[in-house]
Amino acid sequence: MILVNGKLQNTLEITDRGLHYGDGLFETIAVTRQTPVFLAQHLARLKAGCQVLQIPYPDKTLLLDEITQLSKTSEQGVLKIILTRGSGGRGYRQPDLLKPTRIIALHPFPEFPENYKTQGILARFCYTRLGLNPLLAGLKHNNRLEQVLARAEWQDQFQEGLMLNLNEHVIEGTMSNLFIVKEQKLYTPEITVSGITGVMRELILMIARDNQIPVKEAILTKDFVLGADELFVSNSIIDIWPIKALEDKSYPVGQVTQKIMAKLADYKVSDSSHDIT
Amino acid sequence: MILVNGKLQNTLEITDRGLHYGDGLFETIAVTRQTPVFLAQHLARLKAGCQVLQIPYPDKTLLLDEITQLSKTSEQGVLKIILTRGSGGRGYRQPDLLKPTRIIALHPFPEFPENYKTQGILARFCYTRLGLNPLLAGLKHNNRLEQVLARAEWQDQFQEGLMLNLNEHVIEGTMSNLFIVKEQKLYTPEITVSGITGVMRELILMIARDNQIPVKEAILTKDFVLGADELFVSNSIIDIWPIKALEDKSYPVGQVTQKIMAKLADYKVSDSSHDIT
Repeated sequence: MILVNGKLQNTLEITDRGLHYGDGLFETIAVTRQTPVFLAQHLARLKAGCQVLQIPYPDKTLLLDEITQLSKTSEQGVLKIILTRGSGGRGYRQPDLLKPTRIIALHPFPEFPENYKTQGILARFCYTRLGLNPLLAGLKHNNRLEQVLARAEWQDQFQEGLMLNLNEHVIEGTMSNLFIVKEQKLYTPEITVSGITGVMRELILMIARDNQIPVKEAILTKDFVLGADELFVSNSIIDIWPIKALEDKSYPVGQVTQKIMAKLADYKVSDSSHDIT
Repeated sequence: MILVNGKLQNTLEITDRGLHYGDGLFETIAVTRQTPVFLAQHLARLKAGCQVLQIPYPDKTLLLDEITQLSKTSEQGVLKIILTRGSGGRGYRQPDLLKPTRIIALHPFPEFPENYKTQGILARFCYTRLGLNPLLAGLKHNNRLEQVLARAEWQDQFQEGLMLNLNEHVIEGTMSNLFIVKEQKLYTPEITVSGITGVMRELILMIARDNQIPVKEAILTKDFVLGADELFVSNSIIDIWPIKALEDKSYPVGQVTQKIMAKLADYKVSDSSHDIT
């Protein structure tokens, strides 16, 4: 089910700048028991992205109405919001009056084996390197060729591929953020020149800080990551997946990972008690 | 008039990866007297891009038929080809069987004052920096947020903005490639980590070599560009526009620029005598 500017439809104008230039932003939100999870955080990130890309943020009531309309049809699903700059302009030049396109789609929740969460996943390093661009780093924008090319490197042998950037720093997974635990301390790559600041990443950082787990956003090398005591990836759909093997190394689902998973579960319960409107 | 996979339509499936990830390539081709100009060169670049992005190149007969069908409706126009990876897959992962989307659209030719060609244009340097990504450099792919943001920096005071990359090297205009003449020698920025290798850029390089104009693809600093004797930008729609002013400096429409413009005009005449099929 897809709403385009509030209307049920499956198609988009060919003239939309989302198609021509990837000129837009998106959010991928889990829906559980008819409720979009961490919606406030997702919308805050969307709004922040709009400010950087100079795309007008939609009317909040309209947006929430549409999100609610789709979410209430689903016990468990994935809500994808795409906001493009809309049609018009001459070439790269945007029109004087922007009419952004608001696309809200509800998809079935992907079926992942439960043991990805409990026992961990298999991961690898990708050959494809993330480019460097401080202006766009952090944003969940629609220029995602790097991730597409990285994900095309393997089929089903692994559940995630970790990506380095041009500086040979480990940044993230193709569809997730990365955390590593070393000597009881939590690290995640700093997102300053490459990568996306996932909503789940920000929540995990907050949970760590609230629970006296020392945490640092840092430049991480491949060797440092391989030398971790525990490793996990995160995003809004999978929550947290421990990594049980990376290249030829094995990792336990360790205590820090388990503690953060438990705290996240608690936090989700308390968050879902809030009314999204 | 727009053909999507051969059918006249103005819309695209929302599920198309072109929208979600900018997962595609495009070509912008001038149409003169019902004939797409330098079509062979454009299709060769499209094909080369397909190889890098692993998108199957369309059936050539089909593609040429559709291009001819649209071109013959126009005395003068702009033909835009977009080729996306199509719909499907799970997230960034592409489907096992790719069904690319082929979009061919004919637009009116933009009306530019004749003096842009004869007397030159006003240009500026953009604040927005191009990111670094050797894998994607050169390709005319649909991840073009950098150009959109750069073009949003000004309105009508200038005809083009020149972009530097993160290394502070001058790379190109927002919609054009850049050439500079210094001491009778032609320079254009090397496109190895940022920028697009325009079809017109490649033709100008060839014309220079064929006419004993010394030419070099090089790393160019802002100061070197500002210190040029002659400057011009190029693309497939404008051909060549001399720059008459950049920041606070003025430049003549010099002899080397004029020679290349004349040779390009000759070359276009000889090229258009070929049958595109």
